[in-house]
Amino acid sequence: MNTAAIYHRPDSEYAFLYKKDLMHLRIRTARGDATLVNILHGDTYSMDKEKWNEKPVPMKLTLSTNLFDYWEFETKEPFNRMSYAFQVIGRDGTEILYGDQGAFPYNDESVHKGNNYFRMPYFHEADRFKAPDWVKKTVWYQVFPERFSNGDKSNDPENTLPWGSKAPDRQDFFGGDLQGIMDHLDHLVDMGINGIYFCPIFKAYSNHKYDTIDYLEIDPSFGDKKLFKKLVNECHKRGIKVMLDAVFNHMGDNSPQWQDVVKNGEKSKYADWFHINKFPVSYEEGNDFEDAHDITYDVFATTPHMPKINTANPDAKKYLLDVAKYWIEEFDIDAWRLDVANEIDHEFWKDFRRVCDSTKKDFYILGEVWHSSQSWLNGDEFSAVMNYAYTDLIKDFFIKKEMAIPKVVSEINNQLMLYRKQTNQIQFNVLDSHDTARLLTVANNDKDLEKQVLGFTYLQPGVPCVYYGDEYGMTGGDDPDCRKCMVWDQKDQDHKMYDFFKDLISFRKNNHQVMSEGSMDWNVSQTDKGILELTRNLDGKTITGIFNTGEKAQVVLVDGELLLSNLAENFGDNFTLQPKGFVILK
Amino acid sequence: MNTAAIYHRPDSEYAFLYKKDLMHLRIRTARGDATLVNILHGDTYSMDKEKWNEKPVPMKLTLSTNLFDYWEFETKEPFNRMSYAFQVIGRDGTEILYGDQGAFPYNDESVHKGNNYFRMPYFHEADRFKAPDWVKKTVWYQVFPERFSNGDKSNDPENTLPWGSKAPDRQDFFGGDLQGIMDHLDHLVDMGINGIYFCPIFKAYSNHKYDTIDYLEIDPSFGDKKLFKKLVNECHKRGIKVMLDAVFNHMGDNSPQWQDVVKNGEKSKYADWFHINKFPVSYEEGNDFEDAHDITYDVFATTPHMPKINTANPDAKKYLLDVAKYWIEEFDIDAWRLDVANEIDHEFWKDFRRVCDSTKKDFYILGEVWHSSQSWLNGDEFSAVMNYAYTDLIKDFFIKKEMAIPKVVSEINNQLMLYRKQTNQIQFNVLDSHDTARLLTVANNDKDLEKQVLGFTYLQPGVPCVYYGDEYGMTGGDDPDCRKCMVWDQKDQDHKMYDFFKDLISFRKNNHQVMSEGSMDWNVSQTDKGILELTRNLDGKTITGIFNTGEKAQVVLVDGELLLSNLAENFGDNFTLQPKGFVILK
Repeated sequence: MNTAAIYHRPDSEYAFLYKKDLMHLRIRTARGDATLVNILHGDTYSMDKEKWNEKPVPMKLTLSTNLFDYWEFETKEPFNRMSYAFQVIGRDGTEILYGDQGAFPYNDESVHKGNNYFRMPYFHEADRFKAPDWVKKTVWYQVFPERFSNGDKSNDPENTLPWGSKAPDRQDFFGGDLQGIMDHLDHLVDMGINGIYFCPIFKAYSNHKYDTIDYLEIDPSFGDKKLFKKLVNECHKRGIKVMLDAVFNHMGDNSPQWQDVVKNGEKSKYADWFHINKFPVSYEEGNDFEDAHDITYDVFATTPHMPKINTANPDAKKYLLDVAKYWIEEFDIDAWRLDVANEIDHEFWKDFRRVCDSTKKDFYILGEVWHSSQSWLNGDEFSAVMNYAYTDLIKDFFIKKEMAIPKVVSEINNQLMLYRKQTNQIQFNVLDSHDTARLLTVANNDKDLEKQVLGFTYLQPGVPCVYYGDEYGMTGGDDPDCRKCMVWDQKDQDHKMYDFFKDLISFRKNNHQVMSEGSMDWNVSQTDKGILELTRNLDGKTITGIFNTGEKAQVVLVDGELLLSNLAENFGDNFTLQPKGFVILK
Repeated sequence: MNTAAIYHRPDSEYAFLYKKDLMHLRIRTARGDATLVNILHGDTYSMDKEKWNEKPVPMKLTLSTNLFDYWEFETKEPFNRMSYAFQVIGRDGTEILYGDQGAFPYNDESVHKGNNYFRMPYFHEADRFKAPDWVKKTVWYQVFPERFSNGDKSNDPENTLPWGSKAPDRQDFFGGDLQGIMDHLDHLVDMGINGIYFCPIFKAYSNHKYDTIDYLEIDPSFGDKKLFKKLVNECHKRGIKVMLDAVFNHMGDNSPQWQDVVKNGEKSKYADWFHINKFPVSYEEGNDFEDAHDITYDVFATTPHMPKINTANPDAKKYLLDVAKYWIEEFDIDAWRLDVANEIDHEFWKDFRRVCDSTKKDFYILGEVWHSSQSWLNGDEFSAVMNYAYTDLIKDFFIKKEMAIPKVVSEINNQLMLYRKQTNQIQFNVLDSHDTARLLTVANNDKDLEKQVLGFTYLQPGVPCVYYGDEYGMTGGDDPDCRKCMVWDQKDQDHKMYDFFKDLISFRKNNHQVMSEGSMDWNVSQTDKGILELTRNLDGKTITGIFNTGEKAQVVLVDGELLLSNLAENFGDNFTLQPKGFVILK
């Protein structure tokens, strides 16, 4: 047995309260290495009396990756506390006890030694990672406000270009604003959207507004607070949740705080609000507006125009936490999306979480983290992260054909095992955004391929997000090309794509519970034909998706009520799936 | 290569700030599996420009266990942020890139894919685990106040027994008090002690005082606040730090809060201060005072007299946090030891930590946790835990002969790899306590064996603690026998043992820096002879201990200045080590 491959970590994604009083446990073994894993578990203080250590209970092999098998088990304990160890039975006949001190031969001695047991010493509801239920039912829509709709010409910035008159450059303005969003709420309702993620709307210099000047004001070219309050209200009336973008890693260099530092140097009362390595602050210009060298202060990436905030400075911290509270308390927003969240300290985010939780119940906190994010997702910082790591895999598989079916299954399972079960259910599954090329463009303008990717993504745990305009077949390469003006001219809109999005969103919302909480049951028996099949199962309610990723049409035998499909033709109990075709059935 | 055995976890004991701006990295490979591990590391935003991903830097193989090799590396980064991945070169010729997405063949493609890199996105001093420097220089002395010395007969409880007149039973009182401790401070100074860990001193019912009645009063049979203030002051004058015992997991059932619940049931304003499953509170008596069944409320272990506190209740929490602050602020204590710390919620401890840190600089927080403790030791809860897991290994090896030399080395290394480097330096290495049999008794009254265990323990990272009376050769089995009255009659004291303790403590204090921060270099080349050799090395300053654990005398060749020894006879450059003998040299 490959004992060195076995892994478990108490009080982590391997051992956590899933629901109140319900402890969820995982253990990892090398793939195919163990025929069975049993758990010995019970009250720490009654091992000798109850002899629970002599009663192994089988765990369930749930997901596998190329390298590992994951076994899971759920339990309620009479005194809300437990000791536990694992009996791993190897294919080679070896039996070991795996516990807090490592691996031992499974025998009377090892089983009766208290030190060999892991501990979840008490099941504290206060420490449980809590996933707001409403998020699981949400399909988000991301708006980049400057490019969605110009509803009020009177607040257009200087040199505003005619709507959609050109491909956007970095410094262009087209006049999009909050009134424009208000004007099109019914479009979102028609589509089935029930959550809007607003890119930044606070006063800032650039068109993207990630260089905040004033966190307590709406950008005047977008509107004002009164209008925003009305907009939130109108959203809520329509059952649409509102998420704002908090850019707390850095400020714009036009902010009064930074300007004070520029002017007063070390003597500025904001001198410690930033990470300044040498006064006076300065830099040498680089290749473009967002690049520089010899910068004497820490910045976002390499842009001198976004000085990094010292979020450990008590005044700066208080200011930002007050901002966080203000927009929840005064405007009743439902969620914060946190820009460059991984570069801010955990201490700050823990306080941020407390402020949000104490201001509004079931608040959703979404961190921008592109890589593995365990240390932010223990329940006391973020609710979820932008799940690029997950959706990139999907694109790499379906579009770039970078891996075979077993590999993508392995990689997806690997991602799911990085986090607690309830975390996976509210991860933000983003296929494209203002920071990436549009999905259709990545898919080489192949709309069937795009639909296949969408069908597969909406079948995953985690909540989907539509990037504005994707529903009408908009295209666009990397930033800034992905930030084109929304296409409102009906003749330029792809109405078939729109209908597909409506079906997709409707499918997702009607089945949100199975999609969120159901198991992942892969069928890879037709890998050679390019058929990938995934069934989601929650208490016997199953939903199955079958995807033809090969180059030939395939006949698949299916059973059930058709929920969603593309390039699929049905005859009797069979479907013919064209290449890039798929069916999803209940 | 055993790829499945490789492990790394960003933002954990595998990747942490050791000192300001100094990032410490670890990776685990299967033992003997890799000939070399290199690291590719650099600024996330400059990979393409700086091409640091094409410049592998070797890591150092530091510690090994039976199953694993651990490789380490330290770096400062110009922008205090980094991406990194590992090049693992297998003994079988395989080369892989191990990163955020798992293991890939090491080649141009894998090395140039940004997603393959782990991230430590920014080095935040606010998040760094900080070890107070003074703790590294401390040798603790644990006092069980009821049994240390009766300095004031006027406060003796009813039915106080004559000092040392019998072996203690669970309900006995002998009259020990704070004045008794005051009277013997010079004894501690003479021994070299510079920290006292007081078992609980707050008003409580039992002799052990773990069943608190009033957290804001000194137990009247121990003294009063004025005396305690004077005692802390006298300790500080002598350079002795003071640690109190915080029993926050449960209260005594004689506390006014619990009595209010008993009387008023659901209507008590303290009803939610506890975990009550059914009103009125009740239980059926069990085998003894500390046992019961059908208890309608959660308790510590199975004792109905210690109802568990609901530390998530805001009022209860505030009360306990105020208590924590009060004794620091008003009496200037230096440390809290936290009883049954693992059964209290993390949210509580995070707040507790903030209260302590904001009240006194370099405060030490010691949790009672007997098992692996990673989730409490990330820098925002405890400073250290009572390191039973570590010292039990030492006793199992030296005394119980439960394992061979390679196994104890493996197990010790395994313990060290559970935590950050700076955590290991201030772990509380407790060989015996009020909760265990005394070391000499465990060692079957073999004083040479005890000395060998002590010599080895004082050579470890982590700070030692003398349990009161060990210095005079006191014996005692499991609780309550380990809580005998301190032996003050000179004729009953082992003065040779006392001299040994003085030498031991002096050795430790004189060499605290190497002991705390030095590397662990094991020499197991004479395992067949029972010789275990450990060198601690800090910047070329080395201290070596050689221990004869075999049954025959052995000649060992040594070089250096003798610091401490027992059963060792020196001739020329050689020593003859009798069984149970040891030498420690500089």
